[in-house]
Order: sequence, then structure tokens, then C-alpha cells
Amino acid sequence: MSDITESVRALLDKSPFIRFLGIELLSVDQKQARGRMLFAEQYQNPYGSMHGGSLYALADTIAGTLANMCGNAVTTVDGTLHFLAPALHSEYIYCDATLRKSGSHLITVDVNITDDQGKLLDCGCFTYYRTEMVLAE
Amino acid sequence: MSDITESVRALLDKSPFIRFLGIELLSVDQKQARGRMLFAEQYQNPYGSMHGGSLYALADTIAGTLANMCGNAVTTVDGTLHFLAPALHSEYIYCDATLRKSGSHLITVDVNITDDQGKLLDCGCFTYYRTEMVLAE
Amino acid sequence: MSDITESVRALLDKSPFIRFLGIELLSVDQKQARGRMLFAEQYQNPYGSMHGGSLYALADTIAGTLANMCGNAVTTVDGTLHFLAPALHSEYIYCDATLRKSGSHLITVDVNITDDQGKLLDCGCFTYYRTEMVLAE
Amino acid sequence: MSDITESVRALLDKSPFIRFLGIELLSVDQKQARGRMLFAEQYQNPYGSMHGGSLYALADTIAGTLANMCGNAVTTVDGTLHFLAPALHSEYIYCDATLRKSGSHLITVDVNITDDQGKLLDCGCFTYYRTEMVLAE
Repeated sequence: MSDITESVRALLDKSPFIRFLGIELLSVDQKQARGRMLFAEQYQNPYGSMHGGSLYALADTIAGTLANMCGNAVTTVDGTLHFLAPALHSEYIYCDATLRKSGSHLITVDVNITDDQGKLLDCGCFTYYRTEMVLAE
Repeated sequence: MSDITESVRALLDKSPFIRFLGIELLSVDQKQARGRMLFAEQYQNPYGSMHGGSLYALADTIAGTLANMCGNAVTTVDGTLHFLAPALHSEYIYCDATLRKSGSHLITVDVNITDDQGKLLDCGCFTYYRTEMVLAE
Repeated sequence: MSDITESVRALLDKSPFIRFLGIELLSVDQKQARGRMLFAEQYQNPYGSMHGGSLYALADTIAGTLANMCGNAVTTVDGTLHFLAPALHSEYIYCDATLRKSGSHLITVDVNITDDQGKLLDCGCFTYYRTEMVLAE
Repeated sequence: MSDITESVRALLDKSPFIRFLGIELLSVDQKQARGRMLFAEQYQNPYGSMHGGSLYALADTIAGTLANMCGNAVTTVDGTLHFLAPALHSEYIYCDATLRKSGSHLITVDVNITDDQGKLLDCGCFTYYRTEMVLAE
């Protein structure tokens, strides 16, 4: 694992919510990021599939990590998820984030969420705004 | 509290994720639903504001509860949140869901997320599809 | 009609596309804007209802006019339309745009599209970014 | 050009709005569709770049053509465009639509809009619902 991935993981680990979700950053560079979380009962809705909020948390965390790599702290402007298929019999849920635009103010990132077999479960798009927000101690 | 609100709360309480988030249904009828969660550290991102995923979980839970009132179980088709302002010094975060369309197949719900003073923090729109999915035991 | 509405109409009239669509600004102030276009065959899809692109053009024009009232030229960051019901037997299609956020950089505007009877046909949300772009001569 | 592309072009040609925009279907199969329109003054906003509504019309037309290939007539549920960069000095504007989901009721299509050099200008996602709507004579 690269040094940069290691330092970003330390940052994510500051968030109790990300720790509760067990979101794990697998890799990140200037163009893409990949992460995963367990497909486990504690992240599900009353119907036994992953709660939209847990999938969105995974997507926003991995896409936001990629957006942060562009050199400034960022805030999320908006984000959409399309729920295409429910996860079934998967150990992990994976998220791949891909940079679509890195402008002077705005950053746009696509996300694909897949299961262990690489089946597409969800897709979406997140927009971030560059700011110099300081990390909470 | 009405009987229907009570029975829907029992359903939501089946989800460990909704319990972890402490999402509380305040009221629901055929046209609107209202709920809230605590503005607490365990739902925050590394920068000290509410994680987009926790706000999305609140929105999808309350909007989905409203969609379910239309007479069938539903699945989320897609959902968007626009993050307008961060929550600051609020005890709770509130979500108001309003029915925009209740079609024979598709249901559309608007959401507004506000703080204790009623300041608008986030807004969005969720689409649901009616299905006869059986509740997991 | 107010002077400001008159001067904004003159600006919109510079666009051949807006003229082709016959988009008419009815009113605009700091918080909301209202406009309309004819429900006519030349704006329809092959199935006889309004083409999504003509409705989107109406929405982006009226919402963008409102965003411009905030004091700077703006560019559209993103915009979504939800198509709830087709227009039938309406003379005009109306668009009401309402300001949801006017930040130092980003502006968020909700849109509702209705028919002559006030029936909701479409709803959506547009995000704009403030810039000092100069009007093309 | 394949027979199927020819017959779909004849269908699109029934719409005066699509003819006004000069939207041209270049190819379509079960997984993707490609089309284009001229980058011309009559499709621009008052600032001299392509009006969001004309780009959305291109996207919805090409994505909807792909959705129609799945075997039933469809209606647009919702669609989003992210405006990443303005078109400059391009003869045509191209749209590539890619199938992301073809479910029993819902179809999801990604779109990328590019200029002559293949530079990404806009991206988005459209959702369609299968119906048996009859073509207007």
C-alpha cells in the first residue's frame, strides 16, 4: 500500500461513522479510488438489503477521498445514487470512484458499486466544491 | 401518536442500521412524514459535520416510510441530496418528506432537512417503485 | 411588469434557442421566478408529449434567470428533472423557480412545472456557480 | 447503417423538436447508442454556449432511443446532466449512451457528451419506465 493511501486511511479513521461502517480504503491515486465495506446485517434496511444510506456513505466517502486528492479540502455539493440491483450473497460491497472533472472550483466524480463477482449494484455521481476547511482536531 | 405511526416505528426498529442512527419517526400520514436524528459525533465525517451518508439515511428512511404508506412495499429507485449548509449547534436534525407523485408504479417524494431553528440544511428528491417484496423475518 | 423583468426579458431574447421555444418570463424577484411556454407540437417528442429537452430548457432558463438575480452571472453546474405526469390539453406549460440557497459561490433553485390547471407535471433542482462571465455581444 | 438504425431514425424524424435540433442517430444496438447535433448558434443560451436544454434534448433522445431498443416503449422517469465544460470551436456535439440496467420495469442509461476532439463536456444518467404507450400517428 502506498504512503498516501496510508495517510488518507488515518484521516478517515478519525470519523466514528466511517469506523462504524467499516469502510476500508483499498487504493487511491489522482484519477480513481477504490474502497469496500462488509455486506453485514448491521448496515441493512428492514427488508434485509443494504440500507441506501450505508451505500451512500460508502460512495460519498470513497468519492470524497478522491476529490480530496486534487489538492484541497472539499465539501460535498450534491450526490445521487441509482439503486440498480440489491446485493445478495456477497461478502463485501465495493465502490470504485472515477474522476470526471477537476476544475478550479468544482470536482465531479462517478461511482460504481459492485459485489464480490463484480456485478453492478448501484451507480451515481457526486459533485464537490474546493475549500480550505480545516480538519477538526 | 397514531396507531399507524406506532406500527411503522416497530417496522423501522427491525433495522439495526436505523437503530444505530437513532432515526425516530415523529409522524406520518398519506401526504407527508417527519422524523429526526441526533446531531451527534458518531454520525459525523472527519471534518466534524454530519456525514452525507447519515443525512441520506435519514432522508431515505423518512421518505421511504411515506412511500410505503401508499399501500405497497417499495424499493428505492434513486435519490439525490443537495448539501446546502452544514449543521451547527443543533440538538436534532429533522427531515420532512412530502409526496409529489403517487402513480400506479412510481412514487416521488421531496425531502427537506432542517436544524432545531428550522434552517434549511439539505434538500433532495427520492423515487420509489412499488413492489410486493416480503418483509424479512 | 417591473423594469427588472423587462431588462431580463431583453437578455433572454438574445438567445435564438429561447426565442424558438417561445419561453416567456412572467415575473422575477430575489426569491422566485415564473415563466411559461406554449404546449405546442413543435416542442414534442415522437409520442406526442412535450420532449424532456424542451421542459428542461424551460426549467433551466427560468431557474437560471432567478440565479442571475443574485448579483453575478452564473453557469449551470447540474440540473435534474423528474417527469411525473405528461401534459394533456393545456395551452401553456408553466415553470415556477424558488431559491433554496444563495451562497457565496453556489446557488440552488427548485423548479415546479405545471399545466393551465396548476397540476404538477415535473419537478427538479438546478445548481449554479457564480462567475463573472461576460455576455456575448 | 443497419436496418434497425434506419427505422429508429424514421421514428425520431416524426418529432418536429428533434428535427429542429438536427439530432442525428449515428448507431444503436442493445447496449449503446451514439448520436450528434451541430454546435450552432440557434441552440445556444444568451452567453454563447450550448443551452442546457439543447444538450439535455440530445441526451434524452439518444438515451431514450437506447432504452426503446430493450423491447418496449418507454417514458422518461428522470434525468440529470452535469455540465463539466462548455463546448468551444466544435463542429458537432456527440452523445454516447450506455446501458447500465435493463430490468423488467426500469431501464437506466448513462450519457457522455463530447466535442469533436472527444473532450468530455457533460455527463449524466437517465431512468426510463417500460410501458406499452402507442406511437402517436
